Amino acid sequence: MMMPRLVPRWPAWLFCWRAACIQGASVRQKMWAGPSKIPGLGGPRGAWGTSPLVPRGSCSASSRTPEVTLTPERYPVRRLPFSVVSEDDLAALERVVPGRVITDPEELEPPNVDWLRTVRGSSKVLLRPRTTQEVAHILRYCHERNLAVNPQGGNTGMVGGSTPVFDEIILSTALMNQVLSFHDVSGVLVCQAGCVLEALSQYVEERGFIMPLDLGAKGSCHIGGNVATNAGGLRVLRYGSLRGTVLGLEVVLADGTVLNCLTSLRKDNTGYDLKQLFIGSEGTLGVITAVSILCPPKPSTVNVAFLGCPGFAEVLQTFRTCRAMLGEILSAFEFMDAECMKLVRLHLGLSCPVQESPFYVLIETAGSGPGHDAEKLGCFLEQVLDSGLVTDGTLGSDERRIKMLWALRERITEALSRDGYVYKYDLSLPLDRLYDLVGDLRARLGPSAKHVVGYGHLGDGNLHLNVTSEAFSTSLLGALEPYVYEWTAGQRGSVSAEHGLGFKKKDVLGYSKPPEALQLMRQLKALLDPKGILNPYKMLPTHA
Amino acid sequence: MMMPRLVPRWPAWLFCWRAACIQGASVRQKMWAGPSKIPGLGGPRGAWGTSPLVPRGSCSASSRTPEVTLTPERYPVRRLPFSVVSEDDLAALERVVPGRVITDPEELEPPNVDWLRTVRGSSKVLLRPRTTQEVAHILRYCHERNLAVNPQGGNTGMVGGSTPVFDEIILSTALMNQVLSFHDVSGVLVCQAGCVLEALSQYVEERGFIMPLDLGAKGSCHIGGNVATNAGGLRVLRYGSLRGTVLGLEVVLADGTVLNCLTSLRKDNTGYDLKQLFIGSEGTLGVITAVSILCPPKPSTVNVAFLGCPGFAEVLQTFRTCRAMLGEILSAFEFMDAECMKLVRLHLGLSCPVQESPFYVLIETAGSGPGHDAEKLGCFLEQVLDSGLVTDGTLGSDERRIKMLWALRERITEALSRDGYVYKYDLSLPLDRLYDLVGDLRARLGPSAKHVVGYGHLGDGNLHLNVTSEAFSTSLLGALEPYVYEWTAGQRGSVSAEHGLGFKKKDVLGYSKPPEALQLMRQLKALLDPKGILNPYKMLPTHA
Repeated sequence: MMMPRLVPRWPAWLFCWRAACIQGASVRQKMWAGPSKIPGLGGPRGAWGTSPLVPRGSCSASSRTPEVTLTPERYPVRRLPFSVVSEDDLAALERVVPGRVITDPEELEPPNVDWLRTVRGSSKVLLRPRTTQEVAHILRYCHERNLAVNPQGGNTGMVGGSTPVFDEIILSTALMNQVLSFHDVSGVLVCQAGCVLEALSQYVEERGFIMPLDLGAKGSCHIGGNVATNAGGLRVLRYGSLRGTVLGLEVVLADGTVLNCLTSLRKDNTGYDLKQLFIGSEGTLGVITAVSILCPPKPSTVNVAFLGCPGFAEVLQTFRTCRAMLGEILSAFEFMDAECMKLVRLHLGLSCPVQESPFYVLIETAGSGPGHDAEKLGCFLEQVLDSGLVTDGTLGSDERRIKMLWALRERITEALSRDGYVYKYDLSLPLDRLYDLVGDLRARLGPSAKHVVGYGHLGDGNLHLNVTSEAFSTSLLGALEPYVYEWTAGQRGSVSAEHGLGFKKKDVLGYSKPPEALQLMRQLKALLDPKGILNPYKMLPTHA
Repeated sequence: MMMPRLVPRWPAWLFCWRAACIQGASVRQKMWAGPSKIPGLGGPRGAWGTSPLVPRGSCSASSRTPEVTLTPERYPVRRLPFSVVSEDDLAALERVVPGRVITDPEELEPPNVDWLRTVRGSSKVLLRPRTTQEVAHILRYCHERNLAVNPQGGNTGMVGGSTPVFDEIILSTALMNQVLSFHDVSGVLVCQAGCVLEALSQYVEERGFIMPLDLGAKGSCHIGGNVATNAGGLRVLRYGSLRGTVLGLEVVLADGTVLNCLTSLRKDNTGYDLKQLFIGSEGTLGVITAVSILCPPKPSTVNVAFLGCPGFAEVLQTFRTCRAMLGEILSAFEFMDAECMKLVRLHLGLSCPVQESPFYVLIETAGSGPGHDAEKLGCFLEQVLDSGLVTDGTLGSDERRIKMLWALRERITEALSRDGYVYKYDLSLPLDRLYDLVGDLRARLGPSAKHVVGYGHLGDGNLHLNVTSEAFSTSLLGALEPYVYEWTAGQRGSVSAEHGLGFKKKDVLGYSKPPEALQLMRQLKALLDPKGILNPYKMLPTHA
């Protein structure tokens, strides 16, 4: 589908805009757990900042061949001595969540597999509580019976953190999808953990606010899961991390105790900030049942510039220039390399809206003065074009075009997953060295890799380094690991910037944290979950 | 001293600016622990955002009469069975920090008293380590010997958290004042815990950045203490809390273990975010020895508007209007009532720069486009003046005038301390009810209180409610407490928004947190400090 050329509101002398040819993708909102139950919370079509994405949840549901290898067959992991779910257990759980104890093997297949189709558990039971009290009852029961529990939101995680490894009971937040309150002066949203991020975005945007986070999986991921993994995404640069924007949490502890810290206050220094323990703990310390989150006011004007850069040095210099000239209206600075563009074209049929370049940059501004923002952006673009940092560019300022430009960046993950088996690395690195590893790996791996690509949240120093091959290969994995982790540790980077550790990365924690930190993490786990029933085999390394 | 009338850059037709008559105050930087040792870090005259404040540390040092009552004589508190420092201990400690073991009673007087002069300990020893390893040695020794330790930064706390209650050893961070690194692209500052906030401000401002926090005590407070109390202050509205801006910490645990989580990465999801445990834990879980903090770029243009409002409803409506019209350039929204203005005039000789009004509002903008910011501010001011929300106003856009306008708000605390004994309450409340308690208390207390004033960070929902009397009065205290706390709990507010609990507020934690939370806090304390030697008698309630 050809898009008509848009007339930019910027002076024509600035540069020659190229016709934009981006094929739109249809939006589907088909979650295996069923759509949201609240009118107004189920729709996938948000306003500003939302994008046409195939919800991740439906990916794994729709394409079931070839079968994913069972996790214990691919990875060296042994089942811990938890109890096995008995008929008596099922009967007892049925009394807690009547009609919402799922044991049908067909229904259990999608939640046993991660959306990347790299890990697969063999859980025989999925529970769908609606209330915090039901979650408390379930955990109290499982704690007494020594039954392992795998909390699950939208199952959109990248590291195998949201699927069972063996036969853990899956505790789904899918039916916990109620907005509990929204304050239209303060922008504080309080909702249950199972609300879908995109539905929440739409809900608050109708009220003049935006969610402080946005990410590619928005159409499927649950806010509780976002908080449990401390999800990063596209708005960290502007609005900071969830550690600042989450005001309160309600959490059910391993033994069923309800910890209600669901405050709506911006500031509260009464005692230790317990909610921080659960943000980013990936369901291993407690189950988040409700979230209080501060939503920023919706900017009245949003612009997206999609630019081509001749090299990575120019990408970095464009970022520096942009931060200096756009200042407080800069809301995102993303980059992708030419290989990424090749893959979104190949697998998704999207077209590059600018001249082909070694690198592409997506810059978003969000502000309160359309004229002011346009002027700032115009000056910036003039500067980067004149100085040769940018060779070509296109702009979007209406919702449709903004979504199309964002799709190029947001749908890279989807394109990669269609390219074969994907080895994913999510690294924090010093800006100057951010892209070095990509070229390094291309040389190191040679033809044994199908594609080696680099993209990510440059403004946050966060590189997504992905390698694809036709199928899973132990030798390719051996060429990648521990090399990638050692390289990252050598730069004092993080081996998991935003995806967390889950099952697949738990043993690399030591590359980014010292032994004293690991020791304290184990002590915290033992304190909060002495039987270890919450999301076992995840986050903490196997060996002491 | 009369200031010349400043010509605003806004259109004259907007409104009639009144002559500003603000008497400047001299800046003194006289800390009992001696000035910072680093050239460039010792100076008190920062650039943007700093203000002429008498450093708090010097207040308590300079006016020693009348003597402050010993804490155990005023409050019901019993010494726990820690060891008493012996001559052998002093000799051992002298080997760890040679020449920096202070036992001179004269030198020990200021650090035994809080700057508000409300609590007083009887410590016989103060230690001045320079390095993390020295802190580790000290704590290892004290842990083995069961000696209690009171970590102390600038001793500017409001709740008696930074002074000993009995004879705890004072562990001062005053000599740990080195900047370890600063990255002038990312803005990440890594420094020792004893750096003075204002000195750091000056240091980063010279490099094109600002500190993400700013508060009245900047001239004396240490960054380590700021982080330990999760200090709020004047920039939370714009840059969020320290939970988002602190990137890493180095902490020495109670047993002397060094926990090095001093990362400089914006994103790092490898394991539990241990640093969050120590942010806001008021020295009860570990001693912060170094801090990595993300500094925002210095705005190229700053404006301050000081406005008079006819009522609190108008203050709130001004805030809503301001947030909508100033959007991303709004960097502070503070308010004070007429009683506050009366006190800064009476005790500090400052003059009100606008017509006398029931309420005053200080709005700061910080942006990257001087013309754009002026236009936005002009439109906003026209709107609030035309609609009667604001009756009079004055502007500042040069550094000197900005400091003078800020001084009116920042020096309220100082003015109050000169008015007599101060009962301080630092509450988070719903915006609509933010000021109700002030009028309520005036009626309730009648002439038994000298002054009842309300001011604070309105944009954060944070009220500073202060009551003064000639001297400490048990009956006045009885009229205030638990009334204030119960009223706050009734609004689901916080009984300590930003000051923490320290010694004086520890028993009111239960008004803002449920029993399950208290239980978990006690467990965390027991895990991290099993002997309870770190800052005892603070933060957690006395009774189980």
